[in-house]
Amino acid sequence: MLSWIDGQSAEALSARDRGLAYGDGLFETIRVSAGRPRLLARHRVRLEEGVRRLSLPVNLELVEDELLRFSALLGDGVAKLMLTRGEGARGYAPQADAQVRRLLLGSPAPAYPVKNSEEGVTLFPCATRLAEQPLLAGLKHLNRLEQVLARAEWSDPAFAEGLMRDVSGRIVEGVFSNLFLVRQGELITAELSRCGVAGVMRAEILQRARDLGLPVIVRDIEYGELAQADEVFLCNSLYGIWPVRGMAKHAWPVGPLTRKLQGLLCELLDS
Amino acid sequence: MLSWIDGQSAEALSARDRGLAYGDGLFETIRVSAGRPRLLARHRVRLEEGVRRLSLPVNLELVEDELLRFSALLGDGVAKLMLTRGEGARGYAPQADAQVRRLLLGSPAPAYPVKNSEEGVTLFPCATRLAEQPLLAGLKHLNRLEQVLARAEWSDPAFAEGLMRDVSGRIVEGVFSNLFLVRQGELITAELSRCGVAGVMRAEILQRARDLGLPVIVRDIEYGELAQADEVFLCNSLYGIWPVRGMAKHAWPVGPLTRKLQGLLCELLDS
Repeated sequence: MLSWIDGQSAEALSARDRGLAYGDGLFETIRVSAGRPRLLARHRVRLEEGVRRLSLPVNLELVEDELLRFSALLGDGVAKLMLTRGEGARGYAPQADAQVRRLLLGSPAPAYPVKNSEEGVTLFPCATRLAEQPLLAGLKHLNRLEQVLARAEWSDPAFAEGLMRDVSGRIVEGVFSNLFLVRQGELITAELSRCGVAGVMRAEILQRARDLGLPVIVRDIEYGELAQADEVFLCNSLYGIWPVRGMAKHAWPVGPLTRKLQGLLCELLDS
Repeated sequence: MLSWIDGQSAEALSARDRGLAYGDGLFETIRVSAGRPRLLARHRVRLEEGVRRLSLPVNLELVEDELLRFSALLGDGVAKLMLTRGEGARGYAPQADAQVRRLLLGSPAPAYPVKNSEEGVTLFPCATRLAEQPLLAGLKHLNRLEQVLARAEWSDPAFAEGLMRDVSGRIVEGVFSNLFLVRQGELITAELSRCGVAGVMRAEILQRARDLGLPVIVRDIEYGELAQADEVFLCNSLYGIWPVRGMAKHAWPVGPLTRKLQGLLCELLDS
């Protein structure tokens, strides 16, 4: 499968890279179809924020140029873009002269069951909680052990995703998705200033909903609010929107707002 | 410099390794002198705990055998041992058939100034707080962005280390060290069940102090206790013990218990 490092075809990285040593870097998981990266502007915005907060000295125009060329070759699939602080001497101190490493890894298009989108999914209630770290919240950085532990909690394919809560018990997101509730016509998603990943599809949905004049609320969500939701859905940049039909004792219908947003977004990922 | 992957000389790792993708792995930084890894039994105990908590299917006898052969070749320096969950398909789910990757990276012996041990050091008060994640607390795992951010807060070599507090403001550790206070003859170090790395030198000091019949207390440490400490010192597996002389408005003498422990441990790292 297609794999580039710093713009050149390569499969292997220095074992002394700080991406491996410390997870000192960022990534984006990008849907590529018809040779083009989808939601590119939103991936760029999140990457800019990550590069700023981690102080990664990288030319993002070069990164984007490589991504476009890579996507044209990949055609259809997933491009995983990683930026790491490159090789460093032993120790945590970031090198003043860091040479940021740019990785692009291709994968086939995801093979999620069509019924996830059409009929909805069941959520596994993960016991792994998200720690609160405002300095890293929202970013798609390379420190993802919480997601690994959460995803390891279930292997039954009856659960397409898992629900993650923060250490205070609030509802935050899925393991690899963001989560929305609909209640009395309002669209609600978690505020992500203490933990969680600010997904690009989440951002797209927030924008589209606002453009439609829908009431949109980004705030903390208490666990008890799940029981009161009229609709629940998940989203990410690869599959779009999955209605959530149930979790533990809870059950929800596939509601009209979920279907409306699915309709609006269906052309974004494949066309 | 010496570098092995899975027991073979190698400098590069697959760019699809989960150690890079998610920080899905563990490491140990091991002092090697006279061809032998120091504090080996304590490194083994921490690794066993990490392997258990992350469910890494690895033969630790093989890892230790490789470490011994690697150390004999390295002679004098630092062996960084990393275990990762190896290559996986896209997505957080750990592979049922994971082939854990074993890395050994050699570095020269650390060149810390002798006066750090003899005269003591000044601490930088880091603003970066440690998030509370009990599932990962104590482990030396590959998710270390908090340490990278904390170490990036200062570049003035007048500060040999930085003090890290948790999100609640308690004193936890240094960026690459553990921290002890001495008060009225008692030796106090932070309990590490919510965050922090349970260092091998910390464990050694706790054991030696107990063997001497010293009162040893492992518990939460409030920030205000720094002002009341008679002695403060740092420790890790490479440099042993550094007395702390000051931080911000605080100043401490190099006290008798610090010197006594330094004396006991001096033969551990070099001989």
